[in-house]
Amino acid sequence: MNKLIGNAVVGQSGGPTSAINATLSGVIRGAMELRGEGVIEKLYGMRNGIEGLLKEKLVDLFAVFEDESKLTTLEHTPAAALGSCRKKLPEADSGDEVYEKLIDIFKKYNIRYFFYIGGNDSMDTADKLGRYSELCGYEMRVIGVPKTIDNDLPATDHAPGFGSAAKYIATMTQEIIRDCAVYTVKAVTIIEIMGRDAGWLATASSAGRHICGAEPDLIYLPERAFDMDKFFDDVRKALDKHPNVVIAISEGIRFADGSYVGSSTQSGATDVFGHKYLGGSGKALEAAIKKEIGCKVRSVELNLCQRCASHLASKTDLEESVLVGRSAVRAAAEGASRVMMIINRLSNDPYSVEIGKVNVHDVANREQPVPDKFINEEGNGVTDECIEYLLPLIRGEASPEYKDGLPVHIII
Amino acid sequence: MNKLIGNAVVGQSGGPTSAINATLSGVIRGAMELRGEGVIEKLYGMRNGIEGLLKEKLVDLFAVFEDESKLTTLEHTPAAALGSCRKKLPEADSGDEVYEKLIDIFKKYNIRYFFYIGGNDSMDTADKLGRYSELCGYEMRVIGVPKTIDNDLPATDHAPGFGSAAKYIATMTQEIIRDCAVYTVKAVTIIEIMGRDAGWLATASSAGRHICGAEPDLIYLPERAFDMDKFFDDVRKALDKHPNVVIAISEGIRFADGSYVGSSTQSGATDVFGHKYLGGSGKALEAAIKKEIGCKVRSVELNLCQRCASHLASKTDLEESVLVGRSAVRAAAEGASRVMMIINRLSNDPYSVEIGKVNVHDVANREQPVPDKFINEEGNGVTDECIEYLLPLIRGEASPEYKDGLPVHIII
Repeated sequence: MNKLIGNAVVGQSGGPTSAINATLSGVIRGAMELRGEGVIEKLYGMRNGIEGLLKEKLVDLFAVFEDESKLTTLEHTPAAALGSCRKKLPEADSGDEVYEKLIDIFKKYNIRYFFYIGGNDSMDTADKLGRYSELCGYEMRVIGVPKTIDNDLPATDHAPGFGSAAKYIATMTQEIIRDCAVYTVKAVTIIEIMGRDAGWLATASSAGRHICGAEPDLIYLPERAFDMDKFFDDVRKALDKHPNVVIAISEGIRFADGSYVGSSTQSGATDVFGHKYLGGSGKALEAAIKKEIGCKVRSVELNLCQRCASHLASKTDLEESVLVGRSAVRAAAEGASRVMMIINRLSNDPYSVEIGKVNVHDVANREQPVPDKFINEEGNGVTDECIEYLLPLIRGEASPEYKDGLPVHIII
Repeated sequence: MNKLIGNAVVGQSGGPTSAINATLSGVIRGAMELRGEGVIEKLYGMRNGIEGLLKEKLVDLFAVFEDESKLTTLEHTPAAALGSCRKKLPEADSGDEVYEKLIDIFKKYNIRYFFYIGGNDSMDTADKLGRYSELCGYEMRVIGVPKTIDNDLPATDHAPGFGSAAKYIATMTQEIIRDCAVYTVKAVTIIEIMGRDAGWLATASSAGRHICGAEPDLIYLPERAFDMDKFFDDVRKALDKHPNVVIAISEGIRFADGSYVGSSTQSGATDVFGHKYLGGSGKALEAAIKKEIGCKVRSVELNLCQRCASHLASKTDLEESVLVGRSAVRAAAEGASRVMMIINRLSNDPYSVEIGKVNVHDVANREQPVPDKFINEEGNGVTDECIEYLLPLIRGEASPEYKDGLPVHIII
């Protein structure tokens, strides 16, 4: 093994989650160990991902977290403490000057380890950067560290960040079901959950099935074409059974022709990766039920809350997030590069995992939908196998510190 | 003191909250004490308030809660475990047959104590029922037990249920502020908070001011006429200071002419009390900013979550809710009737309260807005005095039992 001595840099990219700072903490903890071994002298944090790196907006993370108790606070702080970005790099062989600039910065700060915490798009950045540094002969180990509430990264059993979002969704759904049960008038409540192309987060609304017997009556995911007539049939049948029907939907549900159910209310704007900004599937179905069925109906969009409600983070998720970050540093020290860390599930009961790695190129820009075996035949609910998959991920409650009634966060 | 021996009935009415079951638990605990003293033999729970009472849908609460540990679970269960209703009674002297029917039911079950847990409208029911039973000479003690997340009940320092909703709003606002801080692009995030006529809940978004220094840049309440030009000015000034502007608004903000800001997107429907169903102030302002300022903008409606997120209930609120319920029973035993229980704040630091009572007629159908001293001069924020009022109410974290990752609720 080639002992590569130098500095390290870490960045966060893509949408924030409740657990991405726990992963950052894991990277810092891992890098502190390497500092002890004389491998790494400094760990820089890039502000706002590679956007900030290009402007040399760097923060000395060993200095900030010299007091290790601050790392515990970091693990319970939502969103990305270093800031995030959505910058997309050009192809590695494009000859674009951005790469030269980046290599100059790496040389200036003697950066030999590059950790990028993010989702599919961020893995694309890690992949290209790793390729370019190899192409130009600059020795630097590049590791992608997964996070995404969407859980749509391939190769890994699940992504850090998903479990905490799932726990919030599962809990809030239970509480909303209780809230909806108080009246006797027929009413439909639609819970709109994040998930543009993959319905993982919406499946979490069903987690209560075997715990308390309460789950939404119906669930619709982007993995199945949405049929409005079948939907009305489903809702009518549910209303025949009991008056307080609760429906969970992914924001990205779409008709057979590929158009979004929420397209009537969406803005039409797209982000730099060409993703459409969505929103409005719940409102669209609310209007449809009002018109067709005529009962009381409302929609609740969990919105940002599901990705930043760190007060209800999953303990399992936070612990795994730290572990994945730490393992990334260890893997880099051992010579790995151009890989993304993954979680392999070894057993469901008792739940156990091991951390592995895959070629980052194989995951970049690819998405992993909810598999067929997790969706019921009618396409309006999830299977028991799906619940078994979900439950270990939401287990355990994070224990953030509170001061005067509010959770304590750290601002770097 | 006239020792009135007989049975008791308790009902929940109006919108559910995270703490209304804690109040129910307090009534049950108080009634169990009276059972020990030979005053009450049975405590009936009406399903869905007086609507269920009229159909004699009653549940024997001593039987359900013989195992007292279930009361602890009840205290951490959101919404109204007995179900709720929004039924409005006619005037007590109207000669309406509903009263005769009610008195017949009271006689049949030998009900001598009537506890009604609810907000302004429920106090109207308690008031009329108390008046009618006096008019017709049926001896029954009627006690209104306050609950409302809206905190708009007069006479009481605050209403049980408010503190828990406020804690969720305060915490979620902190987490959303962190979430919004990750990007460098100018963006406005609008948090729409419940509050039709009173802005109490929206004020809670500012609770972090002296704890962590983070609060929304701007807050708009129904207590001040909303001016769109002033709003655009405020937003532009805020964007000049930093790129991630967060704004909290009450759903019920309205223009000087009395029309709702969200009127363009509201349904126009009204409930049986004539209240307009609102919703859409956030979406309306989102569209306005997009058009006028042109920056990135989104709105987050906290919606049902703020009233049912019992996983984040305020310990202070839950304890006071139990206390108020228990005190209601004690007051009735001591001869009180046609009163609503209230909380008097004795001191802020250390925080202490005492439970009192007022004539229920004086609070029924009346609303208590946020006082002028709590709103800043510009009408776009709250004063330090408001924060001092809020903080004791959100202090302490409820400790619900979790099973397999989800909070345990009780279903009666």
